[in-house]
Amino acid sequence: MDSIKNKDNLKIILDDSPNLSLNQIRDLLSKMSSSEIAHALESSPPKQRNLLFSLLKTEEEGDVLFELGEEIQQDLISNISNEELSEAVKELELDEIVDILQNLPEERMKKILSNMSMVDRQRIEMGLTFPENTAGGLLNTDVISVRPGNSIKEVISYLRDLGKLPDNTDKIFVVNNQNEYLGELLISEIITSNPSMRVNEIMETEISPISADLDDKEVATLFERNDLISSSVINENGKLIGRITIDDVLDVIREDADQNLLGMAGVAEDTFAPPGRAAKSRVFWLSMNLVTAFIAASTINIFQDVIDKIVYLAILMPIVASMGGVAATQTLTIVLRGLTLEQINSSNIRWLFKRELAVSILNGIVLSILVGLITYGWFKDLTIALLISCALVINLISSVIAGILVPLILRKFKQDPAIGGSVVVTTVTDVVGFFSFLGLATIYLV
Amino acid sequence: MDSIKNKDNLKIILDDSPNLSLNQIRDLLSKMSSSEIAHALESSPPKQRNLLFSLLKTEEEGDVLFELGEEIQQDLISNISNEELSEAVKELELDEIVDILQNLPEERMKKILSNMSMVDRQRIEMGLTFPENTAGGLLNTDVISVRPGNSIKEVISYLRDLGKLPDNTDKIFVVNNQNEYLGELLISEIITSNPSMRVNEIMETEISPISADLDDKEVATLFERNDLISSSVINENGKLIGRITIDDVLDVIREDADQNLLGMAGVAEDTFAPPGRAAKSRVFWLSMNLVTAFIAASTINIFQDVIDKIVYLAILMPIVASMGGVAATQTLTIVLRGLTLEQINSSNIRWLFKRELAVSILNGIVLSILVGLITYGWFKDLTIALLISCALVINLISSVIAGILVPLILRKFKQDPAIGGSVVVTTVTDVVGFFSFLGLATIYLV
Repeated sequence: MDSIKNKDNLKIILDDSPNLSLNQIRDLLSKMSSSEIAHALESSPPKQRNLLFSLLKTEEEGDVLFELGEEIQQDLISNISNEELSEAVKELELDEIVDILQNLPEERMKKILSNMSMVDRQRIEMGLTFPENTAGGLLNTDVISVRPGNSIKEVISYLRDLGKLPDNTDKIFVVNNQNEYLGELLISEIITSNPSMRVNEIMETEISPISADLDDKEVATLFERNDLISSSVINENGKLIGRITIDDVLDVIREDADQNLLGMAGVAEDTFAPPGRAAKSRVFWLSMNLVTAFIAASTINIFQDVIDKIVYLAILMPIVASMGGVAATQTLTIVLRGLTLEQINSSNIRWLFKRELAVSILNGIVLSILVGLITYGWFKDLTIALLISCALVINLISSVIAGILVPLILRKFKQDPAIGGSVVVTTVTDVVGFFSFLGLATIYLV
Repeated sequence: MDSIKNKDNLKIILDDSPNLSLNQIRDLLSKMSSSEIAHALESSPPKQRNLLFSLLKTEEEGDVLFELGEEIQQDLISNISNEELSEAVKELELDEIVDILQNLPEERMKKILSNMSMVDRQRIEMGLTFPENTAGGLLNTDVISVRPGNSIKEVISYLRDLGKLPDNTDKIFVVNNQNEYLGELLISEIITSNPSMRVNEIMETEISPISADLDDKEVATLFERNDLISSSVINENGKLIGRITIDDVLDVIREDADQNLLGMAGVAEDTFAPPGRAAKSRVFWLSMNLVTAFIAASTINIFQDVIDKIVYLAILMPIVASMGGVAATQTLTIVLRGLTLEQINSSNIRWLFKRELAVSILNGIVLSILVGLITYGWFKDLTIALLISCALVINLISSVIAGILVPLILRKFKQDPAIGGSVVVTTVTDVVGFFSFLGLATIYLV
């Protein structure tokens, strides 16, 4: 009943910590797993978070730091001494140490590495050579490898000598005496095979190892497509340099989904970031929106004479703009999702474009009739009702063009199409919305 | 080099299928894994998708159907006969069969079950009793269980007799003669232990089994927090009824992230849904936006006299509304993310509210100075410049209130706060934006 009890601890920490003594909190923390403590820290405002972190034992700090998002992780690290940090990360797996150290200032990293043993240092420096978002950045060196000529009996006795296998060990790897990857051997296969068989008789050679420079999202796709628990990682010479395990892949998937969601709104911060940092993370897209809002305003400015004559136009024009904005965001979302899942390609983009056009015409007809009826009911003016209906159809069609082209163009220029795309597409629909409605009004009403 | 070759097949299928003969396509498909075929189907417009599916062998159809999203899956199922479907799902795991059958019309499901053997039928009917979004819906019955009194040697010989272990078997379970769950035994522990030891000496009893009625998102959280590969599932009497494996949990995580992203924009459809269905999925939130857009228009209507006198107001008013909309969506996104990750609770919501207020004031000052300067530069009117600056600060503050309260209220009423939340919050900022700007103008300019 371990996890249920822990969940209660987590709840007590989050809800009642102001009423608890430091010893009571320390006691609760000692009963929680590192990921639960990390969750408690991520659910706490900065002050409470620092307090909770300071109550942890040094040997727990490493695991907890690894489980945290980058921003909070680096915040907490900046408050502890180099000695404490070296001590805290000592027992972690290589990919975890690399994850924590790679964002430190160069100076500080050097100092921390100098506190470590030669062996640890070399291992970590190897890990740090891989770019953050590659298979190399997810790498662990806790691989178990055997030779093709070994018998299963020998393998079992070797494993027994090791005692405990590393977490998530569903397979071991087969290498030659140059440490070049040859194949893999499932633990479940070892246990069910005849002990007198040889490794090369039962090893799996169909599954390709992952290159250290593969993008981490591609690694996640490979794990999902092939239902992997762990995979070997090789360098450019085909040598086995480590393995990746499913727990790290899960983190990649979660972070990717998180960034997609946040990127759409133009925010990039953790939930309880301090106000200054949160303001800074958001002001860029707000400023961009300011520019685009003035572009939309200039469009209205062209038509100030007609608005001056017919004030109803000013009342109705935001409706056309706003409907286009929602429709464009819908198309944008579908396109972004399709791009993320790698479903959209040159062969089907035409079909998608035609489909979106059909959708906008279908919904355009329904909605423009509604808008026309409401407008007529309100102002008893048939011409204005017809004009707003036409403008709405035009703007819904423009929303499709914006919703599809903007992300594709952003991607063409190697920009992340998810970030701030909605600000750009709504600019298009604002401008087209105001232009079509006020333009039609100028032609037919003045 | 298997997966790399397959990726090429996938690319050929997606890009060149119109130029290939049916036999060539069939040949390519036979070289692809079921998840790669599913990806090809999801990346194809309906017509091509139906063609590709019709080229699959019946025995492949089941695996492919399971990998597909619900909408496409049910579409394809509606085109095949009951006999073919029974044949296709026959070899699948229980949770996969249940996933495919549970959305069928009652009549059809009965017919398909009647084509199956008594044993299969009972097993599937048991699986179908669990609600879709619970642990029970992810359940597999391919568990291996042993007794606490068995020796490790007996366990190994039992496993050897079984031959191949089911995929993702990192552990087996220990039950008493009532089939009540007692503990679990890691395969890696079995292989490294002394064969003369007894199961109850090395079995893990600290880890709690999952209840069949646990929400599937909670299951995902448990897997992530405890780095699980598989977990036992028990019924309300503590009896072992099956297990859940990490591959199914990955699907839950992906679907959840997908729904969050789509829900925000008020869409719910697969990327290549036919136009009618796509239009239908989106028209609801477009219509809601129509209602709210008219509410915003009514706000402007109150101030038609002042607009009639000063036409500049009509040009500038969308700027205030649009800035508020972007800021509100940013706050909303942070709150939704915090709610999804269960980071936000009664103890920290106050802090979050104050932080958001501070952010809106900080950004409000920066942006209102910018807006004021640009407006003064454009219209050379100091009063209008000051008014728009004040209105912008007011609206950014209102965006915080909307961005935090709307999702919390929706959740209070058991609604998914992610769905369409942005339409509601932008209504608030539109109304407040128009009201504050035009209201201030009425007071100070008329």
